[in-house]
Amino acid sequence: MIYLDYAATTPISSSALQTFEKLSTDIYGNSSSLHDAGGKADNILKYCRKTLAKLINGDPEGIYFTSGGTEANFLAIHSILNGLPSEKRHFLMTEMEHQSIHILKQQLTMQGFEVSTMKPNADGVITTDILKRHLRPETGLVSIQHANSETGVIQPLRELSSYLHRQGVLLHSDAVQTFAKIPVNASDLGVDALSISSHKVYGPKGTGAVYMKPGVNWKPVYPGTLHEKGFRSGTVNVPGIGAFIEAAEWTINQMNEVYEKHQKLRNHFLQGLVNRKLPISLAVSASANSEVLPHILGCFFDAFEGQYVMLECNRHNICISTGSACSAGYHEPSNTMKALNISTEQALQFIRISFGYDTSKEHVDQLLDVFSAMNDEKGDYRIGGGNETYGS
Amino acid sequence: MIYLDYAATTPISSSALQTFEKLSTDIYGNSSSLHDAGGKADNILKYCRKTLAKLINGDPEGIYFTSGGTEANFLAIHSILNGLPSEKRHFLMTEMEHQSIHILKQQLTMQGFEVSTMKPNADGVITTDILKRHLRPETGLVSIQHANSETGVIQPLRELSSYLHRQGVLLHSDAVQTFAKIPVNASDLGVDALSISSHKVYGPKGTGAVYMKPGVNWKPVYPGTLHEKGFRSGTVNVPGIGAFIEAAEWTINQMNEVYEKHQKLRNHFLQGLVNRKLPISLAVSASANSEVLPHILGCFFDAFEGQYVMLECNRHNICISTGSACSAGYHEPSNTMKALNISTEQALQFIRISFGYDTSKEHVDQLLDVFSAMNDEKGDYRIGGGNETYGS
Repeated sequence: MIYLDYAATTPISSSALQTFEKLSTDIYGNSSSLHDAGGKADNILKYCRKTLAKLINGDPEGIYFTSGGTEANFLAIHSILNGLPSEKRHFLMTEMEHQSIHILKQQLTMQGFEVSTMKPNADGVITTDILKRHLRPETGLVSIQHANSETGVIQPLRELSSYLHRQGVLLHSDAVQTFAKIPVNASDLGVDALSISSHKVYGPKGTGAVYMKPGVNWKPVYPGTLHEKGFRSGTVNVPGIGAFIEAAEWTINQMNEVYEKHQKLRNHFLQGLVNRKLPISLAVSASANSEVLPHILGCFFDAFEGQYVMLECNRHNICISTGSACSAGYHEPSNTMKALNISTEQALQFIRISFGYDTSKEHVDQLLDVFSAMNDEKGDYRIGGGNETYGS
Repeated sequence: MIYLDYAATTPISSSALQTFEKLSTDIYGNSSSLHDAGGKADNILKYCRKTLAKLINGDPEGIYFTSGGTEANFLAIHSILNGLPSEKRHFLMTEMEHQSIHILKQQLTMQGFEVSTMKPNADGVITTDILKRHLRPETGLVSIQHANSETGVIQPLRELSSYLHRQGVLLHSDAVQTFAKIPVNASDLGVDALSISSHKVYGPKGTGAVYMKPGVNWKPVYPGTLHEKGFRSGTVNVPGIGAFIEAAEWTINQMNEVYEKHQKLRNHFLQGLVNRKLPISLAVSASANSEVLPHILGCFFDAFEGQYVMLECNRHNICISTGSACSAGYHEPSNTMKALNISTEQALQFIRISFGYDTSKEHVDQLLDVFSAMNDEKGDYRIGGGNETYGS
């Protein structure tokens, strides 16, 4: 099987798995227990907090472990909103955010917060100008993803955070797709809070973290919460967290090398589309004025339905996606497609290819072979016309 | 090290660890992905749902996996409350519930629910009479733990659920301490929802489940949630869940045997207290009219502070607890002690010993030796008087 859906989830690295085994066996105490079994677990937890802080250039005091990226987003956003002064009840987010942020709208509204969204420009980018148009005097928090899971477009967080801070507004960023793929330096990016996830960086599923810049005045979503300094309740998954941090270090250690490799594979893929005259175009054109994660290729295969392309690849033992895994099976355009004003017809043609650390040129060539065969057959499954958009 | 804090958390069983390894390596796809890597994960998930349903005599349709017992409690209670008719906005719980339920009060109140609590009788039991006094015409849901984590007292859920159903009120039960320790038969108990946790039954930390009786009209806490049929959002931790279910089966397979063994160890411990004339009494007397989990012994060591006893045991390489691990380090009486109307002074003398599958008579004897030595020394650490409550 050729797995090209690393943006959905990654296999666990062998060192992370070893760490999990070791911690599960030796350090099984409850980190809140005050005896030695608990103390050992708490020491590992402290080590993990310190290590993760170093990896994102943050303060260990600001690290809060969660059950994953979704919970990280929820707790970070809700906790910050709870801590804002009463005249700052407006929360602004981009339309391209992950579903885990979109689903907070109703809850937050019920609790008296105002929630509104903003679209990016045609390149998929949130600019200072866009922010300006959407900020209100009562805006207290803005959430802008570090990079999009379907297009790979990276947001200029540094510029946006510095503008927001001049307006006295806090910035949370969902860095689930960027962490350990490109540098995520909390201090450089100027974010007030970050969400990250373990299973996107070769760690186990079921764990993640929030980084909250010390000094941000958050308040618990559930007052009375005793774990993670009141941030999250529930027995802390120390073996999972240890494995997560091991995986994060492993991934970051080879980050530059893998980035360059993915850049080359991306070019190889795009050149392959041109050479093979395939009517496949990037959702955000390569010529757009935006930075992208090289390992994520969000494309339209004119004029095949994404679902059909994915299944046809699957038939050839290649796993690609029709978008965010969280929305799989929901036959309607994703939040990102809607945010980019892409027509429903075209949005349903969306496919996402995402590379991992072991993706090779041969994998990409095999994928291109499947695409070529599909295109040559131009069978009954082709829908609509054909825009002849060779390459990107 | 002699570990006698199994009610706080358990080590992972070797078969559960093997399952985790195997699934993490072979079945790493996102269970929501529609390609084969996702499909394989989804098949494992379906198998787990079916197996867990069988273990609790429920319907696989009613199984929702969570990140643990705490999240299970929160989602079960909140989802059921969301689905109740508008005239049923009252939620009643016992004062002895786990902290994860207590901390929901403020959130639920903010969302327009009324929350009230009830105390058990002197035996630590909630009776139909107590329920009667606390139910209101607008009560829609009651939450009663299956057994208490500090006293081990088991609630007569069957009787309580049948009374509640006659009143048109739903029952949720936190079965985290009972699952795989005594039979937890959802149908026999008549509960509408149950919460369980993996790391109390020799499974990995970071996973748990809710059983919701099909037909209960729950509504998502976060409308728009796509995973677990809208019940919980976030990538499903399939390797963790697989390991959880493996551990649950393993634990249940030896449940009767372990129960009998713990019953004997409990008697051995209590007899030891009498033989050694130790001023240690059970928080809920053995002569009380209540059923208890034999592996949980909640005691007062007159007149030592629980914290001191715990540390002294720790110095002798024995891990016991001063109560629920979730409240460790908080130097005030636990919810359970308050619910039992135990004075603050006595509540601070509380210690909990909890047995696991490999606890032996020798472990218990070594613990009793430490207690005896402490009692003989009667050093400066002894506080207050002495009630001469040998054994109990």
